[in-house]
Amino acid sequence: MSPESSATPGTSAPRGVSLSGESIWQTPGRRQGGCGRSLHRAGGGPMDAPRRGPKEERGVTVERIVVAARACFAEQGWAGTSLRGVARAAGVDARLVSYYFADKTALLQACLQPPPGFAERVAAAASAPLDRRGAALLEAMLANWNDPASAVVLRSVILTAAHEPLALQQLQSVFRTALIGVVAGSLNGADGPGGEERAVRAGLVASQIVGLFMTRYVWRIPPLSELPDEKVFRLVAPTVQRYLDGPLDR
Amino acid sequence: MSPESSATPGTSAPRGVSLSGESIWQTPGRRQGGCGRSLHRAGGGPMDAPRRGPKEERGVTVERIVVAARACFAEQGWAGTSLRGVARAAGVDARLVSYYFADKTALLQACLQPPPGFAERVAAAASAPLDRRGAALLEAMLANWNDPASAVVLRSVILTAAHEPLALQQLQSVFRTALIGVVAGSLNGADGPGGEERAVRAGLVASQIVGLFMTRYVWRIPPLSELPDEKVFRLVAPTVQRYLDGPLDR
Repeated sequence: MSPESSATPGTSAPRGVSLSGESIWQTPGRRQGGCGRSLHRAGGGPMDAPRRGPKEERGVTVERIVVAARACFAEQGWAGTSLRGVARAAGVDARLVSYYFADKTALLQACLQPPPGFAERVAAAASAPLDRRGAALLEAMLANWNDPASAVVLRSVILTAAHEPLALQQLQSVFRTALIGVVAGSLNGADGPGGEERAVRAGLVASQIVGLFMTRYVWRIPPLSELPDEKVFRLVAPTVQRYLDGPLDR
Repeated sequence: MSPESSATPGTSAPRGVSLSGESIWQTPGRRQGGCGRSLHRAGGGPMDAPRRGPKEERGVTVERIVVAARACFAEQGWAGTSLRGVARAAGVDARLVSYYFADKTALLQACLQPPPGFAERVAAAASAPLDRRGAALLEAMLANWNDPASAVVLRSVILTAAHEPLALQQLQSVFRTALIGVVAGSLNGADGPGGEERAVRAGLVASQIVGLFMTRYVWRIPPLSELPDEKVFRLVAPTVQRYLDGPLDR
């Protein structure tokens, strides 16, 4: 079974994974992913939407540019990405990219914004009763990977963080505030553990969730990459729960 | 506390981490890491070793080239790496790189060889008695990250796998044989679990170990990045052990 089989429609793989992963991992050749490929239809002109001035279609155009730029940064890194290349991949005029983004740094920063809903899902899960909080957190993180709009950002931040210090900083910052900070804060009850222990417990929760997602979604290592969500959830939730409120040294 | 503080000498961070991480994460500016920087001493000529013909110093020269190439591929990806750039970073003549490596693919493949001792450490740990095997496996993986020669390769394969399909394949292959295969095989006793369960247990072990190492060593997220090895070991070993021989669904 190849790692890609988990992305076949009809299997148990979450939808977001195949959508977000295709451009980077599922292309047999080199450099034919979302970055090199124009969003124009083959041989055709711009897509069907009527052409409007930059102001009117701002949201759509900016999103097109950011989607293309995420693929470029993730695949080719900072040095290999040019505003012109991003414009080509997005199927827009290069001047439009410069119009919306002052420079490459501003464009990268836009690409690294936390996924929509990410922090809200984690925060909602962290307010579940303590004895169900581990399950709720794992469920929230699975939901983040199953939401295509969220998964594509998570994946691209992870891949870009591998070679871009700015992306690593963004990843560290989201981690510290939206995951470790929120989970540690949720343990801050009257009879809860001290601050250092809270942070360690939250860090352990993060370590298990990150490892699951790296092996299952990013690297796609069987067998975890091939199991249905419900099974993964049953296998891993007890660990997350133990890190939250169980004994830590056995 | 910055993530970098874990690499300060005298703290609890394993030696290999600071050695292997410096060129990629600890440089404030862009592209001043191991790839762009020549291994020559500043302003000087080649290093002290007397110049010999390619045959005699083959091992040393090949290692210099591979070390430089790992940094280049990890930081700048396939497209951003040239044999000429690698030669410059290694401080050797470009013709020497071509002499030892037929092309860029051969050079990348040399960079992706599993770290020395990696598979042996995991295999030795997997033959520990079952009730101590989780601790032995975690200890073996910590030893791999604490061994500078091993850590630099692990880190570079992980970073390069983020943008190079060939590196991802190598990572998947090492995972499946040297970690998941070995751990699953170690559970193959007369009264052990069935093949599918063995593989799932081994995958869960890998997920926790990967998550610990991504958050602690690669992304350097506090507080796990700042704890001493012994503490991390005590916190995480019970999870690894439970994945090996404990009940899986609670």
